[in-house]
Amino acid sequence: MRIDGRPYRTIWPDGDAVAVIDQTQLPFRFEIRRLATRDEAADAIRSMVVRGAPLIGATAAYGVALALRDDPSDAGLGEALRVLGATRPTAVNLAWALARMEAALRPLAPSARHGAALAEAASICDEDVAACEAIGVHGARLIAEAHARTGRTVNVLTHCNAGWLATVDWGTALSPVYKAHDAGIPVHVWVDETRPRGQGAALTAFELNAHGVPHTVIADNAGGHLMQHGQVDLCLVGSDRTTATGDVANKIGTYLKALAAHDNGVPFYVTLPLSTIDWSLEDGVREIPIEERSCREVTHVTGADEAGDLRTVRIVSPGSPAANPAFDVTPARLVTALITERGVAPASREGFLSLYPERRVGTAA
Amino acid sequence: MRIDGRPYRTIWPDGDAVAVIDQTQLPFRFEIRRLATRDEAADAIRSMVVRGAPLIGATAAYGVALALRDDPSDAGLGEALRVLGATRPTAVNLAWALARMEAALRPLAPSARHGAALAEAASICDEDVAACEAIGVHGARLIAEAHARTGRTVNVLTHCNAGWLATVDWGTALSPVYKAHDAGIPVHVWVDETRPRGQGAALTAFELNAHGVPHTVIADNAGGHLMQHGQVDLCLVGSDRTTATGDVANKIGTYLKALAAHDNGVPFYVTLPLSTIDWSLEDGVREIPIEERSCREVTHVTGADEAGDLRTVRIVSPGSPAANPAFDVTPARLVTALITERGVAPASREGFLSLYPERRVGTAA
Repeated sequence: MRIDGRPYRTIWPDGDAVAVIDQTQLPFRFEIRRLATRDEAADAIRSMVVRGAPLIGATAAYGVALALRDDPSDAGLGEALRVLGATRPTAVNLAWALARMEAALRPLAPSARHGAALAEAASICDEDVAACEAIGVHGARLIAEAHARTGRTVNVLTHCNAGWLATVDWGTALSPVYKAHDAGIPVHVWVDETRPRGQGAALTAFELNAHGVPHTVIADNAGGHLMQHGQVDLCLVGSDRTTATGDVANKIGTYLKALAAHDNGVPFYVTLPLSTIDWSLEDGVREIPIEERSCREVTHVTGADEAGDLRTVRIVSPGSPAANPAFDVTPARLVTALITERGVAPASREGFLSLYPERRVGTAA
Repeated sequence: MRIDGRPYRTIWPDGDAVAVIDQTQLPFRFEIRRLATRDEAADAIRSMVVRGAPLIGATAAYGVALALRDDPSDAGLGEALRVLGATRPTAVNLAWALARMEAALRPLAPSARHGAALAEAASICDEDVAACEAIGVHGARLIAEAHARTGRTVNVLTHCNAGWLATVDWGTALSPVYKAHDAGIPVHVWVDETRPRGQGAALTAFELNAHGVPHTVIADNAGGHLMQHGQVDLCLVGSDRTTATGDVANKIGTYLKALAAHDNGVPFYVTLPLSTIDWSLEDGVREIPIEERSCREVTHVTGADEAGDLRTVRIVSPGSPAANPAFDVTPARLVTALITERGVAPASREGFLSLYPERRVGTAA
């Protein structure tokens, strides 16, 4: 998407190296970081210079290519997979991207590996962009319908950052917003700040502002009030993991917004690529383990002081403990529909199977 | 309640003056401020050295007494009412306390006014303490019942600060917690941080910690997840304004927690003194105007740096606007019961009238 009118992806090849947007500096500074070696790519993932599951996978893929430029041997490939795989061990896209790189490269002669790795990493990026853009096309239709129905600006509420900064381009939840905005449909986004890490206030607000999409940041507490008063036409959120039955694990607080949407008749859409569906799970609330993160994310906040320098301050009363569950599960009954790269479907096993008939067991298909 | 083992109220007479806890310094510093004149009392209200509707009323009452010590004439009384009444014009308890002081003092000879004013201010404080303590007694029974049912620590979730710091003592939502804790019932409080102003993280956490009540601060997003997993036995919140039908206007985000409680079968109790009931209102969502506060409360956060100095940092992406509705309305259908100084009743017109039969119109009573 655009920053100050110029189109960007979050990662792109840059001569002998790969370039990324340094997301640790956002929203206060926009800096490009050049990653020239395997270890610089690994560091970028580990230190969250890049974040968001699809972008982590893409960076790891380029990291393999950088490693093979220096050492295309079997040993060099194995070491690259090991080093890059250890950076964020729980990120499912990381393991997926590295397995795909290995499958493509291991059979090749060492001399062919560097070039093939660059091509494979580029394919991973392009496929992510295509999937996210397709989600945008399908979702934008829902925004266009809301506009046709009301004749006024469509108010979308989103939670956390499921925007292009978390992917290679377009994003998931925000892709329909960009598609609608670029098509001239008037759209405005209520951006949940998304405590405790503040991805909405920092990243979603930054990317919407940079692309020129009207938006307003709100406290996470405010969404229910806005929905009670008709100020939200639809909700769009991402998903970190989705059960085969349509339950959605996403950033903590998503469930509360889904409850408010349900209570006020506001459509609540979850956007997701195929890769987040866990076909083995039936009951999200009972089966999906929820990561408990550092309580310091709750007790302390980092922001920019008047001089623009980043500072960290304590906001919780000293001596008081804190807890920090990072995700919650929104039951499928609260989800109006799922928006995937293949289209829109009800949040149910049948809904998924209508989009992914190849997953149907025991049929002639 | 206690701070470091020593009992306090939020306001008390101190020789010729009145002493208050300086709440602008909490939670990082505990300082007593001595208010020796009418203008010092007015400044304390205006600058939020004291906050919380009942405490504002009590401080204004003592402010009248301080004014009459220096000038007990009709002119002195009138000027005191004017100056103090202009400090926080929307606080309903402020106008109520000043009207009560005027009614008690205007008929008296000037020479009798200072002493009578001190006595009336003390009565206002004592009556607030008694009402809050009675709420605690009624509410603690519900905590005791939960403990008897489960045999383990009772987990209470609260939002914002409806504790003793907002009143003269005991508080409203936290009064049942203190009563239960002091009676030896094991109780633990999940404290919503309560963005954007952070009254939970700062004040509720401070007072629970100071009194020795086990508690854990959480992001406002976390309550639904905790309720889904059986980690909340009941919710206790305050009310800024309550309709005759039991709809509750309270700090923004209360409605979202009520939805989650309802969805998970967790009892959701609202504590309130008679004074917050607005008998003229029928439909809280439609009729209660919601204050829109400064967006700077959303975009900026103040906390203590490592040296303990207070610093303000920006957390929202520069250039992005913010909105800040300060309250929301929880419909009566989501409220399990109301806890008042007269007892516990359903959140409905009939429920209120069972506690306040003198409000029944057209009956022999």
